[in-house]
This record gives sequence, C-alpha cells and structure tokens, in this order.
Amino acid sequence: MLGIILVSHSRKITDGLKEMITEMTGTEQMIFSAGGTGDGRIGTSAPLIMESIETCKNCERILLFCDMGSSILSAETAIELLDDELKEKCHIIDGPLVEGAFVASVHSLLTEDLDSILHEVSQCK
Amino acid sequence: MLGIILVSHSRKITDGLKEMITEMTGTEQMIFSAGGTGDGRIGTSAPLIMESIETCKNCERILLFCDMGSSILSAETAIELLDDELKEKCHIIDGPLVEGAFVASVHSLLTEDLDSILHEVSQCK
Repeated sequence: MLGIILVSHSRKITDGLKEMITEMTGTEQMIFSAGGTGDGRIGTSAPLIMESIETCKNCERILLFCDMGSSILSAETAIELLDDELKEKCHIIDGPLVEGAFVASVHSLLTEDLDSILHEVSQCK
Repeated sequence: MLGIILVSHSRKITDGLKEMITEMTGTEQMIFSAGGTGDGRIGTSAPLIMESIETCKNCERILLFCDMGSSILSAETAIELLDDELKEKCHIIDGPLVEGAFVASVHSLLTEDLDSILHEVSQCK
C-alpha cells in the first residue's frame, strides 16, 4: 500500500486536500494531512511530518507532496530523523501539491509502480 | 491593482491559501477564496466564481488560479457570464494552484506586468 503525506504551510490546505481526494476517489487511502506548525499556525513542522510518516510505516512506499520552500526543507529534516528502513521508503515528490497529490492518489489505485506514478504527476501542470 | 481568484474543489484549500498568502506576504491584496460549491461541499460553482470576479471589477487585471478539471471549466463558464469589459480583464492561469497563486501574489508586489508574472509562475514546479 502507498502512503501519501501532504505538507503545506497551511493546515487548512492539507485538511481540505485530504478531504477532497478521499471524496473524489471514494476510497480510504493512507493520506495524512501534515500542514501547518502543529498548533494551527502558518508554517511547517518536521516533528509533525515525522509523526505522519511513522503512522504509515507499514506502507511499502511513502510519497511526500510539499508546497514550497521551507515545507520541502521540513520534509527533508523529518526524513533525516527516521530510522534507515523507514527513510528508504520515503520519496519527496517534485510536483504541485494539490494537483500532484490528487493525480498520484488516483493513479495509485491502478498501480503502485513508482515510476508510473511519477510519470503521471509530471504530466499535471 | 491585481485581483487574484482562487478556485479549487475544496473551500478549505482556497481559504487556507488566501490566509497563507496574506500572512506570508504581510499585505492586504485583492485575493478571493472561491473554492467549493458555495454551500461548503466538494465541487465548484460558476456563480460563486463570478461573484468573486465582480468584487474586484475595479482591478486592472484579474488572475484565476484553478486546481484541475471542472474547476477550470467552472472558471471559464463564470467568465462567459460577465460583461465584455470585465471579461477582458480575466485570465485563467496555467499553473499549479497553491505554488502559482503564491508566486504571482509575491511577484505582483514588484510589478503588475502580466508577462513578467506569467514567467515567474511558469518557473514554479
């Protein structure tokens, strides 16, 4: 199974994105909203991202979608703090947060092949 | 002045994006959250988008950022319903919703030249 972690400076964005994907795909995927500082402010939090990753440690692959700048840095920091086995499962995806996570989520219902998913993400915007 | 309309299938996403841009740029720009169906459900609404556009009818240019699929169609429908003068001010931007709207908003503090803003947006993801 695939885990998808949503990282943005805004918790509302990642909560809304999770809700949108869940409703539009009609499935219960392993999607985690890890936006904001953890106490609701604008910003990002490496510990919060790390916690979300650990929640889906049984997934074969974990894809992280970030908005920009320090959200990518926080995701990198979170991955650095993981044990090696879990670290290797994580991939920070170079693609737009909303469109990329949606496309990856839909495509992962067809295949869990990472290259195939990355190809689809690279086609969106 | 530039008007920015945010269109997504999720109101939470556009509310969060507006909040994030406002806080991170520290300015009060003409940004409108036009996500969701209008009554809070997942989906898009041409009348809601049209209303947001009309609120910034005094702006010289109005840029619309959409997530995907039917949000672009709803934005196109909304524009079709406007009078010609306002219609000409509107541009649906081909770029990622969150990253594109953020970059356009920051760059518009430096210049309102549309080509320059579109160039910056095309560089993000």
